[in-house]
Amino acid sequence: MDAFRLHQHLIGQQGSRGLLNTPVLLVDLDLLERNIAEMANFAAAHSVKLRPHSKTHKSAEIARRQIAAGAIGICCAKLGEAEALADAGIRGLHITSPVVAAPGIDRLIDLARRAADTTVVVDHGDNVIALANAAAEAGVTLGVVIDIDPGMHRTGAADPQAVVALAQSIAGRPSLRYAGVQFYCGRHQHIESYPERKASIEERTQYLQGIIDLLANKGLKPAIVTGSGTGTHLIDAELGVFTELQVGSYVFMDRQYNDCDIRGQGNPTFETALQIDARVVSANTPGMCTIDAGLKSMSTEAGPPPILTGAVAGSTFRFMGDEHGAITAPEGARAPQLGASVTLVPPHCDPTVNLYDAYHIVRGNTLVDIWPVTARGRSR
Amino acid sequence: MDAFRLHQHLIGQQGSRGLLNTPVLLVDLDLLERNIAEMANFAAAHSVKLRPHSKTHKSAEIARRQIAAGAIGICCAKLGEAEALADAGIRGLHITSPVVAAPGIDRLIDLARRAADTTVVVDHGDNVIALANAAAEAGVTLGVVIDIDPGMHRTGAADPQAVVALAQSIAGRPSLRYAGVQFYCGRHQHIESYPERKASIEERTQYLQGIIDLLANKGLKPAIVTGSGTGTHLIDAELGVFTELQVGSYVFMDRQYNDCDIRGQGNPTFETALQIDARVVSANTPGMCTIDAGLKSMSTEAGPPPILTGAVAGSTFRFMGDEHGAITAPEGARAPQLGASVTLVPPHCDPTVNLYDAYHIVRGNTLVDIWPVTARGRSR
Repeated sequence: MDAFRLHQHLIGQQGSRGLLNTPVLLVDLDLLERNIAEMANFAAAHSVKLRPHSKTHKSAEIARRQIAAGAIGICCAKLGEAEALADAGIRGLHITSPVVAAPGIDRLIDLARRAADTTVVVDHGDNVIALANAAAEAGVTLGVVIDIDPGMHRTGAADPQAVVALAQSIAGRPSLRYAGVQFYCGRHQHIESYPERKASIEERTQYLQGIIDLLANKGLKPAIVTGSGTGTHLIDAELGVFTELQVGSYVFMDRQYNDCDIRGQGNPTFETALQIDARVVSANTPGMCTIDAGLKSMSTEAGPPPILTGAVAGSTFRFMGDEHGAITAPEGARAPQLGASVTLVPPHCDPTVNLYDAYHIVRGNTLVDIWPVTARGRSR
Repeated sequence: MDAFRLHQHLIGQQGSRGLLNTPVLLVDLDLLERNIAEMANFAAAHSVKLRPHSKTHKSAEIARRQIAAGAIGICCAKLGEAEALADAGIRGLHITSPVVAAPGIDRLIDLARRAADTTVVVDHGDNVIALANAAAEAGVTLGVVIDIDPGMHRTGAADPQAVVALAQSIAGRPSLRYAGVQFYCGRHQHIESYPERKASIEERTQYLQGIIDLLANKGLKPAIVTGSGTGTHLIDAELGVFTELQVGSYVFMDRQYNDCDIRGQGNPTFETALQIDARVVSANTPGMCTIDAGLKSMSTEAGPPPILTGAVAGSTFRFMGDEHGAITAPEGARAPQLGASVTLVPPHCDPTVNLYDAYHIVRGNTLVDIWPVTARGRSR
């Protein structure tokens, strides 16, 4: 049964978190609200705009709350995410990966028709021509942002000359609107030491500033400079080159970002709003037990999840196949009992969210709402 | 847009595989049919029954084809999978993990009411009592199978005495039907060397046979002995202790099982029916390119996917975040061009399938159908 049929009757019932079928993806609404407000206040104080990234949450409801708190729009990793959020009424959408294949370009033009302020990145001259031709044929003007490779070699124009050539190509095509540039230092977001992260971003920002100056000299100064993330938002805001920040994970946090000293103050800036409740389904081995959450309940590429509550301190989680995980208690301690509830922190929030159809929204131990993961699985 | 809205118009159109939006999960129907027939013929020749495991495919359509080929029912890892398949009319369901929590037991009883031949495993005396009480109260008879731990310490009764105690407890409760025992050697399935896999399974089967003999001596001979998997099905069938095999991955195969010498003959017994098509979305770095499939398009815990077609031999894949992967060509060779299609082999089929809402069914390069992943995300 889907989450709504299973659990809708529990909404508002005091203590109903303990009655949920598990595994279940939870959002602590108090913490989510604090995280959204904290980042909105930060942006206002630093005079920088927010266009939060929805690849983290894929949720129209959370996007609406971010916009209500002042965000100018929402970033999407893929066209399919943007379509799903546009269907839910979200505007100011920016697609942060190139849309290259013919069927995707057709859909992009349809999207631009109903959500005219949508922008998409380009990093190749052939793609500029393809987008311009499709937009011209459809009679729409498509906003495009030049993606610049910060050295990660994932997407982006490879050097300053390539950026200028793209800008000139875009500016010369009336069916395209040259909206600005994107520069996303993905690898830098998770450098755990604040001083190291700061030094590496300062170096990268000099490179970016050089490109912006070059564009300005050619009369192609970018109106939008978009990028940044939860890990570098303070550094980027202080450097003042970005006009808007694509922060994503701050809404939820996860183990990876909890390990980072985000603002160089040693204390956590954002709180762990995203959690997984699981239950013990087998307990026949002294010092360990098996819970009902495994490879299909959280992403695995960032290591095992820390245990937030439900097991004695020092207990560890180990993946035990598709649907199970082992909790091992420290030497001499007892593992949780059969049926007991255990709360985990997702190791990496984005791909974990993508496994669930719904968020179970709690305040304290009470289920207060169920929100669909609007763009779950929309990777195309 | 969902797969059906996006691609339904391409069904039956010659060569339409190349027109699909990517990333896309594909099933080569010719290969799927051959795999299903091969395993059905094997079981018939060895006089053993098949109850294939749906944790691999989560598909009512594939379950129906397995049953049409002679399977006596379908295994499910979780109650939610069993509910989804029961809703689609599948019967002979066996749930291979314990159902322990109160909300789950309520749903299990509902399921047993509409699908009376459903069985579930138990591995703890408290759970036997809870199931018996719930079944008695509802006036249903619930079939239960004792899960025996093969030494993996995931689920299962810990020793022969515990198995006998559970059998006696079940036999003494009129609301329960003692159906048999389960013994699943999960870790052994993927031992790559056939002789090593055989030796370890022979040792484990002696342990199982001892328990069966003990039960028989107490008048509690199990009617069903269920277990096995794609990796050990030949060995288990020849040993002749199992009455039915829970084979799963054989329908699709994946990198993990392709690395195993499944029947000790050196040649692949089953074919790689499950594939992912992706496309190059960025190509600005010599010798490499970026495709539109990453952490959200395949499971990561079994390593990177091999590249089946679309890149020169010796090219490798590396995960590049949520939505992207890098293809690196061997020294001196060219990487695929912008927009080019690349076909990948899922490293581990089960959690990869769980990321997709639909299978795109192809014969050759033509889309012939779209099947929902019926029980996607049904981990509770």
